[in-house]
Amino acid sequence: MTGQGTSVTRAERPASAVVVGTGLIGTSIALALRERGSDVWLTDTDQSATRLAGELGAGQVLPAGGKRGAPADIAVLAVPPAAVARALADAQQRQLARCYTDVASVKQLPLRQARELGCDTTLFVPSHPMSGRERSGPAAARADLFAGQPWVICPGDETAAWSVQVVTDLALACGSQPVMMSPAEHDRWVALVSHVPHLVAAAMAAQCADAPPGALALAGPGLRDVTRIAAGDAGLWTEILAANAAQVREVVRAMVGQLDAAAAALGAVASGDDDAAKQVAALLESGRDGVARIPGKQGGPAPRYAVVQVVIADTPGELARLFAAAGAAGINIEDVRIEHSPGLPVGVAELSVRPEAAAALSAALAAAGWPVASPA
Amino acid sequence: MTGQGTSVTRAERPASAVVVGTGLIGTSIALALRERGSDVWLTDTDQSATRLAGELGAGQVLPAGGKRGAPADIAVLAVPPAAVARALADAQQRQLARCYTDVASVKQLPLRQARELGCDTTLFVPSHPMSGRERSGPAAARADLFAGQPWVICPGDETAAWSVQVVTDLALACGSQPVMMSPAEHDRWVALVSHVPHLVAAAMAAQCADAPPGALALAGPGLRDVTRIAAGDAGLWTEILAANAAQVREVVRAMVGQLDAAAAALGAVASGDDDAAKQVAALLESGRDGVARIPGKQGGPAPRYAVVQVVIADTPGELARLFAAAGAAGINIEDVRIEHSPGLPVGVAELSVRPEAAAALSAALAAAGWPVASPA
Repeated sequence: MTGQGTSVTRAERPASAVVVGTGLIGTSIALALRERGSDVWLTDTDQSATRLAGELGAGQVLPAGGKRGAPADIAVLAVPPAAVARALADAQQRQLARCYTDVASVKQLPLRQARELGCDTTLFVPSHPMSGRERSGPAAARADLFAGQPWVICPGDETAAWSVQVVTDLALACGSQPVMMSPAEHDRWVALVSHVPHLVAAAMAAQCADAPPGALALAGPGLRDVTRIAAGDAGLWTEILAANAAQVREVVRAMVGQLDAAAAALGAVASGDDDAAKQVAALLESGRDGVARIPGKQGGPAPRYAVVQVVIADTPGELARLFAAAGAAGINIEDVRIEHSPGLPVGVAELSVRPEAAAALSAALAAAGWPVASPA
Repeated sequence: MTGQGTSVTRAERPASAVVVGTGLIGTSIALALRERGSDVWLTDTDQSATRLAGELGAGQVLPAGGKRGAPADIAVLAVPPAAVARALADAQQRQLARCYTDVASVKQLPLRQARELGCDTTLFVPSHPMSGRERSGPAAARADLFAGQPWVICPGDETAAWSVQVVTDLALACGSQPVMMSPAEHDRWVALVSHVPHLVAAAMAAQCADAPPGALALAGPGLRDVTRIAAGDAGLWTEILAANAAQVREVVRAMVGQLDAAAAALGAVASGDDDAAKQVAALLESGRDGVARIPGKQGGPAPRYAVVQVVIADTPGELARLFAAAGAAGINIEDVRIEHSPGLPVGVAELSVRPEAAAALSAALAAAGWPVASPA
């Protein structure tokens, strides 16, 4: 295990898998495995979530007594961090699979708890696909959620090498890039790149919770970007942050110290104190340096779709007419987003289509009388 | 002046304008006015910026001795906050216009400094178009930069009503929505929605400035979103933050207090302290509430709507049929979102409707043969 992580490449796929927990991550893994032709069984304490995942094509619902026949190649425990060890004990007791992984965003705690519960941790490979969305639940799942993203694999000292290989195959089957590191390294780094950003986004957004609407009407894309991830599930995130408390605290304290010092210096800058100005500028410059070092900063993953913007009236039936016009032209809308300015009688529908269909859609809608604009 | 701001509507345009400072904002205003047929003169201490703006069609270069003939209807001082008062004094001394506005992102400081410099502040209307781009300079300017965005107008007590009307006309001519509020209200609110988010993004990004590459390779879109605006100009932002020091400090301190308390509570949560867990969850929930209140958030529909999820085939015309079925039931779809994995034959359409219509919509769609699910 090195500080840089070690890349692994090998392309197999688990022939069969049980997914325990059909939320966003579990269902997305199931969809990815189904695309590769694996047999997938689904289970969740919320039966409507299992059913929806099944309807989406993620696999078949696991019978209450467990699947028939041999254990699956792997069971994926897609449950919150504090629930992993219990889920592992239960799954091993039912002999659901020949090896096990979890996908929680903290790695030291589940492994420690699994050992304490007496699980067979030679068959347990803690892992963490570094993908997510601000939305949750099976409806938000997608087979390509992990494509091109790192999937961190954090075996314990006792973990059997062949178990690690099965989890590596799982990550590759989902299109991820497997990265090996120790559970401790993982937890320190995700505190920095995931857990603290979430807490900071929440704290920033919390300042807006009681602001007057007139204040928030002045918000631009900057505030929206900074706070976007704070829309995540509060209960789950409390658990994640607590499970990684020591590492989170260390980063928060460093950051809070810098914010405090900058805020204190600002008044002095206004009265012409050059040293104070340099101190604030140094923090902002350090921020610029940090942003420049974050991979993929230029807007993240490449957009797969072209966007056609259409100005629409805010009246009943308008969307139906819009989609009917697109459908009549034989064009499949991949995604749609509607932007409204409160109080304005019109909005903008942003239709995502395959790039090769964008020109035809624009032409068809313009011919049908819709004001079509290019994206800004 | 109310806490909500007051909307103004009236559609005239200044017949003539001088733009002092041909960066992104000044040149964009000039372009918008030229599109409406106004005469526009341009000036900047950077003559190459003035020339480029002129070449872009933003107007004619102001001669060194000032324009000939009568003063312009308005002069727009598009310079950094601390430079506004000097620019105003200079422009008034040259009698460039009959009234004056600035576009800086802080409003109390320029007005106070203008009074201290002995400017005629009955003719000065501080204002702030709430638009911007990551890029700066005249080449990034666009005539529609302000379209549909708020333009805050912050007259002082002494400001003449007709001056306010001219600036209102300017905002309307640029396609903005004029919003009236006091300079103090403006500064408090932009601290919340713009200045502090910038400082927080910088402080978060600064934690990444010395992180190992292996750590940053784990970063997902969350960290990128939280830190994106920290890429802005450090010198300009030091000046902006200092010019609004008191308001920025107040928001930063509230936020730092919450972050500190949450970090302290996390360890206790991990050892099973329910009160500590509630404290952390309360901050995260307050963050969710805050995000939901920020207009134009693309993270989902406003909470006043209920969501009905429908599994749909990924084929042309499917959405049109879905909307037609909803329309036949007399139900107005307020918003729609489509989730699907590329390559999968089905997706999920999430239809937002008024809560009282959700049951009827579910029933109507189910009766028409659509697989309807409840949201997770």
